[in-house]
Order: sequence, then C-alpha cells, then structure tokens
Amino acid sequence: MLNFTFHNSTKIIFGKGQIKALSAEIPKDAKILITYGGGSIKKNGIYQQVIAALTEHEIFEFSGIEPNPKYDTLIKALDIIREHNIDYLLAVGGGSVIDGTKFIAAAALYQGNDPWDILAKRQAITEALPIGAVLTLPATGSESNGGSVVTRDGNKLAFGNPLVRPLFAVLDPAASLSLSDRQVSNGVVDAFVHTMEQYLTYPVNGNVQDRFAEGLLLTLIEEGPKALLPELKEDLTVRANIMWSASLALNGLIGAGVPQDWATHMIGHELTGGYGIDHARTLSIVLLAVMKFCREDKRDKLLQYAERVWQLKDGDEENRIDKAIQLTEDFFLKMNMPIRLSDVQLDESDINKIIPQLEKHGMTKLGEHRNITPEASRKILEIAL
Amino acid sequence: MLNFTFHNSTKIIFGKGQIKALSAEIPKDAKILITYGGGSIKKNGIYQQVIAALTEHEIFEFSGIEPNPKYDTLIKALDIIREHNIDYLLAVGGGSVIDGTKFIAAAALYQGNDPWDILAKRQAITEALPIGAVLTLPATGSESNGGSVVTRDGNKLAFGNPLVRPLFAVLDPAASLSLSDRQVSNGVVDAFVHTMEQYLTYPVNGNVQDRFAEGLLLTLIEEGPKALLPELKEDLTVRANIMWSASLALNGLIGAGVPQDWATHMIGHELTGGYGIDHARTLSIVLLAVMKFCREDKRDKLLQYAERVWQLKDGDEENRIDKAIQLTEDFFLKMNMPIRLSDVQLDESDINKIIPQLEKHGMTKLGEHRNITPEASRKILEIAL
Repeated sequence: MLNFTFHNSTKIIFGKGQIKALSAEIPKDAKILITYGGGSIKKNGIYQQVIAALTEHEIFEFSGIEPNPKYDTLIKALDIIREHNIDYLLAVGGGSVIDGTKFIAAAALYQGNDPWDILAKRQAITEALPIGAVLTLPATGSESNGGSVVTRDGNKLAFGNPLVRPLFAVLDPAASLSLSDRQVSNGVVDAFVHTMEQYLTYPVNGNVQDRFAEGLLLTLIEEGPKALLPELKEDLTVRANIMWSASLALNGLIGAGVPQDWATHMIGHELTGGYGIDHARTLSIVLLAVMKFCREDKRDKLLQYAERVWQLKDGDEENRIDKAIQLTEDFFLKMNMPIRLSDVQLDESDINKIIPQLEKHGMTKLGEHRNITPEASRKILEIAL
Repeated sequence: MLNFTFHNSTKIIFGKGQIKALSAEIPKDAKILITYGGGSIKKNGIYQQVIAALTEHEIFEFSGIEPNPKYDTLIKALDIIREHNIDYLLAVGGGSVIDGTKFIAAAALYQGNDPWDILAKRQAITEALPIGAVLTLPATGSESNGGSVVTRDGNKLAFGNPLVRPLFAVLDPAASLSLSDRQVSNGVVDAFVHTMEQYLTYPVNGNVQDRFAEGLLLTLIEEGPKALLPELKEDLTVRANIMWSASLALNGLIGAGVPQDWATHMIGHELTGGYGIDHARTLSIVLLAVMKFCREDKRDKLLQYAERVWQLKDGDEENRIDKAIQLTEDFFLKMNMPIRLSDVQLDESDINKIIPQLEKHGMTKLGEHRNITPEASRKILEIAL
C-alpha cells in the first residue's frame, strides 16, 4: 500500500425526504445563490423542495449551467454574486452543476487577473465560497470531492482543491427517479469507470481498497441494469444503491494508497471537448480499448478483476482476461452505451484531430505508469474504432 | 437502505514515516498535552518520533492511561490541563489511550457538576478540547470516530459525540510492529467483530455497505493470521492492511444506512468490567454464541456471510450456516483467541453475576431487533460456557 492522506469532510445526508435537512446546514444569515441547470429540477419537484426548505434564508438563483459546464456560462454568475454579496452557493443538480458551482466558488474569490487561469494555468486558489449540494444525478462523485471539470472553446480542463469540496451533500435517491434512461446509464457507467481508473492498475497490496473497489463494481453491475427495467423504474432501493456507489466511487476513499490511471478520462475528455459526446459515453468506448492496449501492464489486476468481479477462476489466463473484457463490454451494451468510436460516428480521420488536442492539453504521459504517450493514445483510439 | 447521515471529518495520514506530519497539523501556538499509556511508546521509539515532530510546540505529558481506561486515572489529567492552560490533546497509543483522551477532552470543558455524569447519566457535552491521534495499535477505530468507553468500579460505560472525534490521525503501520502477538490478535478480532456488529443483522439492501463489510472481513481473515507468523512479523504490508481495515471497520461508513447489533459488545463489556478480560477476548467468546442464539433472526445474513466470506454456496442452508460459524471459530482459534467462557475460567456461577450487571447498566433490550433481554443474554452466555 502506498502512503496517503485521506480527508473527506463532506457531510452526507442520504435518503428519501432528506432535502428538508438543508435548512439546518446553511447559516441563517447566509446569502445563498442556488445554482442549477436547464430547469428539470422545476419539473421533478426538487426545486420546490429546496425552496420550501429555505424559507428562512435569503436566496438568489443562477440557472442554465449546461452538461460539461462552460466557462462562458459560469463566469456570468460572478456578477450576481458581487451585486448581492452572495456568501454561500447551493448547487442543485448533477455533476455538471456541482462542478460548475465549484468553479464559480473559486472564481468569485480569485485574487489573480483572470479566473480562467485557475483552469488553463492551474493557478492555485487560496479561498472559495462555501458550497452545499443537492444531488439529482448520481454519477460523478462531485458532491463530496474537490474536483471540477470546465469546458471553454472545446477545451475540457480540470482543477481540484479541498476548498471547493461541498460542506454537505443531500443524496435523495428519489431525486433521481425522473432521470432519462440515458442519464441513468451515463451515471452508472461514469461511476463504474471512476472505480476502474483507481483499481485496474497494478497491485500494491492495497487489499481493502481493492475489495471496496470490487464491491462498487459488483453493485453497479448488479443494480445498473435494474434501473433501466420498466418494472423497477420506481424502485428507490435500486436508485439508492446506485447513488451511494457513485458517490463512494470518487470521494477519495478507494483511490487512497493505490496507483491511479485516468488515461480513459483524459482521452475521453477530448472526445467530449471536440465532439460534444456525453462524458460517460466517451468512457465506455475508451476504457475497453485501454483494457486491451494495456493488457500486459494491467495483467495482474485484470486477472484479479476477472476472478473477483466476474467469477472467472478457471482456465487459461488469456481466456480469463479476454472474457473479463468481453463481460465488461456486455455490461456497457446492457446499459445502452456505445463501445466503439463508430458507434458515435467517429473514424480514423477524427483520431488525427484528437491526438493534437491531447498534446495541446499536456496529456502526453498518461496512465498509472505515465507511459501512454500520444502515440499510445493513438493506438488506443485505433483499437476503439 | 435506511436513511442516514455520514460525516467523518478526521484527516487520515497513513503510512510509514508519517508521524513527522504531526507538526503541520497542530497550531504552532497550541499548548499540547501528549497522552499515552504505560510507556511502551518510549521503548518502540514512537514517543521519540512524536517529540521530534513537535520541537516547535509547547508540550506537556500525561501518561499511565491503562487498557480499558479508568475514570479515576483520566480525571487526574484535568489538573494538568487547568494548571498549564492546555488547549490541544494529542493521544499517542491504541484505542484505550484515544478513548481515554476523548473523555479528558470532554471533561476538561464540561459545564456540569461532575464529569462522571457524561458517562453515567449520558449528559450531553457542548464543547471539548481538540484532539489529534497517533495510532499504535490498530483495533478500535477510535482514531476516527467520536466514541469512547471508560471504566469505573467495574462499570464499563460508553459515550459518543462528534466533538471528540480526532481532527487528524496518523496511522503508521510501523508503529504496530512492536506489538505483542496478543495485542495483534486482540486488534484483528476487535475489528472483525466491529464489522460483524454492523453487518450480521438483517438485509435492507444496503448493497455497498454489505460489500464493504465483507471486504473488511475478508481482509482481516487473510491478513490477521499472517501478522502472527514469525516470517511475516516485520511485514509492513500486512500491518498496513490490518491497520486500515481496523480503522474503516468503525469509522461510521459501513454502519451508515444499515441496522446495527452491538449485543456482543454490550455483553462483552460486562466480562471486561467484572473480570478484567481483554475486550477483544470477550468478543470472540460472545459473538460465536450470539451467532448461534440469533440464528433465525440473522438467517439471511448468515447465509450471505457464508457465501461471500467463506465461499459456502452449495448444500443445505443449515449446513452452510453451521459451517460459517465453525469457520469463524476456526479463525478465532488461529488468532489464539478464547472461544468459550471456560477458556477464560468463567462458569455458570459467573453468569449469575453478569446478568444483574447488564440490567444495572440498562442493557435489557440488545441487538438489532432490541429483543435480547437479560434472559436471552443468559442463554447466550450459557451457549458460550
């Protein structure tokens, strides 16, 4: 096991009907900016629940945060914050709204010239507005971590800082009942790949971390497809298990003390940045190719994954690995995800555009061994054709 | 899954050589009281590492906190705290030292007449001195939770409050290398039973919690016996896995959103309080009897435990349950733990003394169904004879 520091101070308030707990979590004298997306929270009643919980608070609103939140959108919130002396942000939505809100929280108190530097130049932040979150779409884990991804002009860039970790997060599985099948699928597969990025590397005898990661993978494999079945669409237990799995997949716990990969994400970000493909739908495509391309580097963990997640214990090693990759693909297909670049209408010529973008963004040494060069990324994308 | 709130803000600093990180965690102007036990930390060099890390701080010492820390010992720390205006406590030791330090932290700022009321009358506390911890004995999880158990005149009583949760905890597996085999065994089995108390109840579809609990049980079963092998006594990987498992077994995570039992602990406390038997050695005895006595109430989870922890998937249900209990007993024996009351020289006549103590301490409705009456506790102890 590697040395590590793990500190996750986000208070998780989990379960049906918990949105009303908001009131006690935010100081009564706070000036709150409620941030959200396209307005789906008004249709499914989450917005109304939030407003009902905050009758004793002074609230303002900022809506229109899109999937893969855009810098140009987010920056507009700063005017409202300054005008009304906002001192608390409440993100109501999925990972994009929460990620976007983190950037707003950092940008609002940024001392430098241009908040874009937080992303483009990785300029450190020294303060941020406090954030609370009401999660509606289980997927990214953003509700209890300090990471954020923001897009500008096709460039999808990340920053991370404990200062933007939400102080609390309400996880009400009922809030996820109104999601589309596509949103559910994306969320489950996003969480699955987050787990794989921290698990499918090389063994360091992080036995607890491995067992926990395997537990999340097994839960997502079992529960994910259920959420798409007509007869289980209203099943809160299924939603609760998906929501808690997705949160734990990226709250820092399973990645503490073990190597991490993240090549799939970094390559996937270019597919989203350049072509607007849903984040999770880039991951299902790229992960399968990474598993194949990095087969030797990841051999020991692929075999462990085969045995513990897919119960493949007998027979030839190569067969077990092949079968595990095939079963992963089957799982993605069951979740209605694309598994090849051709599924999202990309071909060889697009690879020629993606590789320079990876280079431009400094993504030239990816993976747990930092050996995935642009040339290797090209081969991964070719495998994914 | 049940609704829950989970909030664990303790910063974990894990790994060999991490004790030096102490310095940055405690304010430079703090007046620190270092609390410890019988002085083993001076023999194994932990004390020296702590002192070396705190050369820029003003430090005082309070030693002599014994296993199952005594009220009469702990209360003496209050004089030192008042005399020197101590405003930070640093517990260096195992669960007893940390538990005792939590009581000191609460008692030091207690507004009532008698700090004993915190335990005896469950009087709420409203403030406590900040605590940091350096863990030397992985077992109780006390380093990142808000629970504490203190003994007075044979009465072993608990209190819990987030105010006494350590702000940070250094978990250096090397600090556990000098432990005796008995201490190692006790720690592993304590963590194992902590996990079982939160796992072996009845199913609520808390799938992630179940998987995580099973992951801890599997890790403890695999790694625990290794730590007793002469050839692996210096193996830091084994120690690291045990240390991290024990911490996660009682940091609140696996118990969030699921029923909890704790009958084994409550009955076990009377064996320690009345006879001075090591805490973990009461648990190994009582848990096996609870598994047998509560066989019907726990049937579904016993079968799940049999399948997922012990790979018992085939054959008759009764056989699988019998076998799982037998394998649990075998594991305890491999860890050199007692499995019967007779192993610790107690007999039927002692049961007659233990039951009134349980009643005196209000332990009359134990277990996840609150159906373990004193009469049931008697039967459990009779099974354990």
